[in-house]
Amino acid sequence: MDLVHAGGRPYRLARAVEADVPAVVALLADDVLGADRETGELARYLAAFRRIDEDPKQLLVVVRDDADAVVGTLQLTLIPGLARAGATRLQVEAVRLSSRVRGTGLGTAVFAWVHEYGRRHGADLVQLTSDRSRRDAHRFYERLGYLPGHVGFKLTL
Amino acid sequence: MDLVHAGGRPYRLARAVEADVPAVVALLADDVLGADRETGELARYLAAFRRIDEDPKQLLVVVRDDADAVVGTLQLTLIPGLARAGATRLQVEAVRLSSRVRGTGLGTAVFAWVHEYGRRHGADLVQLTSDRSRRDAHRFYERLGYLPGHVGFKLTL
Repeated sequence: MDLVHAGGRPYRLARAVEADVPAVVALLADDVLGADRETGELARYLAAFRRIDEDPKQLLVVVRDDADAVVGTLQLTLIPGLARAGATRLQVEAVRLSSRVRGTGLGTAVFAWVHEYGRRHGADLVQLTSDRSRRDAHRFYERLGYLPGHVGFKLTL
Repeated sequence: MDLVHAGGRPYRLARAVEADVPAVVALLADDVLGADRETGELARYLAAFRRIDEDPKQLLVVVRDDADAVVGTLQLTLIPGLARAGATRLQVEAVRLSSRVRGTGLGTAVFAWVHEYGRRHGADLVQLTSDRSRRDAHRFYERLGYLPGHVGFKLTL
């Protein structure tokens, strides 16, 4: 889909395909919070992948290095709305970069691409939530200009 | 669509139609934060309504009293995902109840309906964000069992 550079290396951002699901799940699970959460069977993830893939407002992204390995993932959702004078929101969920590419500037390059994707699709704002314990992530988003003005609430059904 | 009761009165929850847009915008604007934000032309809101209405994963809800007046609104988005073992999220945006129905228990009744809608559509969790300044709303969501475990970040594009 698109090329970004970080630490002198090229990375490709592409729409995930079904064959990428195990690599994406491995990234989700290789995380202090994800380790406990991502214990489902592969079949559950494949079913979820199909629900994402058939929804034109969803984009599951994989980031590949120059050896074609999946080193990052995130999901984008375009949400039209009436509030804020009819603003369309671009929501970012499930952002993960492999620990071996952290600190290279790849996160910043990926988010520059995300913002460009949002503008290209008519989004007026980008929003995301981050677990209260992820202090490094919060500093990263604030450096990019994000304002931490909201409390994110969740309820398990 | 569905009937709820609060303070001894019936309220109907229905999918918004184009003719409801001015009433929904009036609710969004009659708010301490919305007063500054909701200054767009009606045409912008009508265009946004059409984007919502044509997306099968969006549901813009209006709450009507027994005189058919719109006294509340909220927007629901179903977001499939891989994280949390392939969880589908139900996201709630732009919740507003008219000041004249606040304190009647209508909010609680509406959210019980929201959670039922989520379960019926395969959602595993409900999520929403609320501006840090909305202390009363935070207490309301915590009473309903929501956990305030995330920081909500936004960036204007």
